[in-house]
Amino acid sequence: MSLYENYCEAMRKIADVNYASALLQWDQEVNMPEAGAAARSRQLATLSGMAHELSVADDLGQWLVTLNEDQQLTDPEKRNVKESLRNYNDRKKYSTEFVVEMSKTISAAFQAWQQARKENNFKLFAPHLTHLVALKQQECELLGYSEHPYDAMLNQYEPGLTSAAVDKLFVEVRANLVPFVKELFSKPVPDDAFTRQHFDRQQQWDFGIGLLKAMGYDFKAGRQDISAHPFTTNFCSTDVRVTTRINENDLKEMIWSCIHEGGHALYEQGLPEAGYGLPSGEYLSLGIHESQSRLWENNIGRSLPYWKVHYPDLQKRFPKQLGEVSLNEMYRSMNKVEPSLIRTNADELTYHFHIMIRFEIEKGLMEKSISVNELPEYWNARYKEYLGITVPSDANGVLQDVHWSHGSFGYFPTYSLGSFYAAQFMHQAVKEIPKFWEQVERGDTTALLQWLREKIHKHGRLYTAAELCTRVTGSALSFSYFMDYARSKYGELYQLKAE
Amino acid sequence: MSLYENYCEAMRKIADVNYASALLQWDQEVNMPEAGAAARSRQLATLSGMAHELSVADDLGQWLVTLNEDQQLTDPEKRNVKESLRNYNDRKKYSTEFVVEMSKTISAAFQAWQQARKENNFKLFAPHLTHLVALKQQECELLGYSEHPYDAMLNQYEPGLTSAAVDKLFVEVRANLVPFVKELFSKPVPDDAFTRQHFDRQQQWDFGIGLLKAMGYDFKAGRQDISAHPFTTNFCSTDVRVTTRINENDLKEMIWSCIHEGGHALYEQGLPEAGYGLPSGEYLSLGIHESQSRLWENNIGRSLPYWKVHYPDLQKRFPKQLGEVSLNEMYRSMNKVEPSLIRTNADELTYHFHIMIRFEIEKGLMEKSISVNELPEYWNARYKEYLGITVPSDANGVLQDVHWSHGSFGYFPTYSLGSFYAAQFMHQAVKEIPKFWEQVERGDTTALLQWLREKIHKHGRLYTAAELCTRVTGSALSFSYFMDYARSKYGELYQLKAE
Repeated sequence: MSLYENYCEAMRKIADVNYASALLQWDQEVNMPEAGAAARSRQLATLSGMAHELSVADDLGQWLVTLNEDQQLTDPEKRNVKESLRNYNDRKKYSTEFVVEMSKTISAAFQAWQQARKENNFKLFAPHLTHLVALKQQECELLGYSEHPYDAMLNQYEPGLTSAAVDKLFVEVRANLVPFVKELFSKPVPDDAFTRQHFDRQQQWDFGIGLLKAMGYDFKAGRQDISAHPFTTNFCSTDVRVTTRINENDLKEMIWSCIHEGGHALYEQGLPEAGYGLPSGEYLSLGIHESQSRLWENNIGRSLPYWKVHYPDLQKRFPKQLGEVSLNEMYRSMNKVEPSLIRTNADELTYHFHIMIRFEIEKGLMEKSISVNELPEYWNARYKEYLGITVPSDANGVLQDVHWSHGSFGYFPTYSLGSFYAAQFMHQAVKEIPKFWEQVERGDTTALLQWLREKIHKHGRLYTAAELCTRVTGSALSFSYFMDYARSKYGELYQLKAE
Repeated sequence: MSLYENYCEAMRKIADVNYASALLQWDQEVNMPEAGAAARSRQLATLSGMAHELSVADDLGQWLVTLNEDQQLTDPEKRNVKESLRNYNDRKKYSTEFVVEMSKTISAAFQAWQQARKENNFKLFAPHLTHLVALKQQECELLGYSEHPYDAMLNQYEPGLTSAAVDKLFVEVRANLVPFVKELFSKPVPDDAFTRQHFDRQQQWDFGIGLLKAMGYDFKAGRQDISAHPFTTNFCSTDVRVTTRINENDLKEMIWSCIHEGGHALYEQGLPEAGYGLPSGEYLSLGIHESQSRLWENNIGRSLPYWKVHYPDLQKRFPKQLGEVSLNEMYRSMNKVEPSLIRTNADELTYHFHIMIRFEIEKGLMEKSISVNELPEYWNARYKEYLGITVPSDANGVLQDVHWSHGSFGYFPTYSLGSFYAAQFMHQAVKEIPKFWEQVERGDTTALLQWLREKIHKHGRLYTAAELCTRVTGSALSFSYFMDYARSKYGELYQLKAE
């Protein structure tokens, strides 16, 4: 075996263990009987320990250093090696003591957060979060950064992203989206009460499966199941699974989780099989991943052409509930913009205000300009400022998300990035694909999927997000595409021009 | 941590990896989309390699040697150590080259077997089987034995079992069971045509779930799913899963797989949780495992009292198909004794003739008195002799079972041992539990389950099968209990006394 092949095989072995963990986690959410939980925790801990050991092995490090100087390698091979070496060096920065301390702190913080949210008592969570934030501040130093400590956190999920770049995006959000949304708030609110009738479970399930099939999700290389919180996972690019949930009294939950997770899954199914375990076979970043789910969910899934073809089927399944509801009423209901307390329930515009608040807080915590004890007050003031709403309780405010209790700082901004990338990609796709919306209107999104495969999916992590964005769209990420999308869609929907 | 605790933690870690593999395998049979197969194979290979490395680690070996001399340990601790050391030493006997060669040969043999069975052409399988048998002969030498090379194979599944002991059992089978069954063959055959009508899938499923619940199977620590070949697996004693299959045109498949796998599962659910990864928390042997499935399937499940309580429910679910079928007709149909070609379809008496033939062949192969090329002829002659039937094709003859292509030699005899142990355990349970059959007739098998838990399950692998049998029943395993059971049950059923 060549040195390069040795390296590939070592990476594949790490992937084997990580994918085994992913299956154990999938099973935990989908199938596991309750009494299996304790053993499952230890099995996952053992596997993650073993994967870590493999991923910091000395021989792997030596191979990577040697290969990184090897001029005989092809370009994709060089990029694989460079990216793997970067990951290797990052992982090597962690001492075992630090990893153990972090893991214990997260366990305790997660439990405290659950209790605090249940009892609506931030004080129960505060000391744990304080400890966790201190460790995360340490982690920023340990990983290193050039401008802002928080950059180290962002880089874990979005390689190359800086606080300055996110700041710049949110300056534009504040300047453009905030006043635009305020204008929308002054208009009559679309009615969506009809989506909260009783909708038969099996009919919902069948409709959702139909949507996934129509998107091009390959059921020979995946499956859908039910779980409390919908998610996508994969154990290779030919076994990519989605989950959904069904609320018999609210049609929206199933529909949007199906299309959203379907978008994630199409990305994973489109990654090159030959790159198993290597950067060339893995997703680029969370922001790019989220761009795929949001493009399908919002730009396609919440468009009028999409429902022109799918709404008749939905009406046929629920004649009593939807027989009298027009296509346009349905379209308006799914694009209702309103201030909301809870991020995961927010519409596609105000969503970014939720993220902006979290970003400001995380950045402040990492640079030590905000302390944990101030968080509820800070949070509530920002919700008043950006969304005009009074937060009635910390449980529905600063305690609503699981992320911080899991130690995930730097994750939230990738949600907004995803939407912004999606708008820019869509703009390009519509330009390049002839009669784009006519195809969507006929229920045919194969050209779009083909385009995403060719432009984004097949490259795995061989480019940075910035490189990819320029290759695909000819320019760097710009908030203007999202703003144009918002103005055009909601301007028409809310008849702003008619004023 | 004490040395004993170090050892325990090392064993638990090995179990973590092996149970993760078990989940990957379960998922492969139950959920995996077809395109996931290739990656799953390599994930399983990686995990099994890692488990093997952990299980032959030098420090584990040193701890075991030291602990084996430690007089401070409690008796159960001593037994754990002794058994683990025996396993450790066995695993150390394999060189990496041998393991790799075996694994490659098995892969090729399994593929060849599938093809050979499909094409009904033993010659396609013969060279692979010849190679595999040669490796297995080597393995016997490598593992060592005191009397017969085949003992080394038997010991892998049934520690302490010898060819001589199995020979002795089958001498009695030939002397007693063969003539008894010939007598049954001369009697009118019970009718079971009514079990091959159309039976609704969901009704069958619900009935099967009811049977499992009635047995005491804990659904909070397990679940049932559908798979092509029913099996039981577990990832700890509190997550023990069974699978079944449903044939809408044959009621029998679901019923017997449900009760059989349920019996296996009750054993696993009864193993001590604290013994996770240690001999004290694991099943004793395949023979003892099979005794639990067969006791529930045959001794309980094919008894008249059992159906007195469950048959009315079955009739209610299938009034059209079973409304006119009496309890006694149902009971007779499920105890029909007849010569058959295929082991897995055989009744509980002729079943042992199928095993006897396989045992003779395996023993002959290991001692080199039979060659692979003679197998079809040898097989067919024995089927004529013991079962009086002509084997029409190798596909339904010598090629019917997967075991040899998997390299599993020494496995078959444990099926017969299971039935014989079951008869002996049942004899004792009926003696010790007051009004045993009255309880069964009321649908109450809690006293039986309690007895099995106390006498068998809770001991894990702290005793040998021989020790356990004597502790539970007061005497060594004897075929006479099975023969008494057969004479009593089938004598009455076939009205032999009436002659």
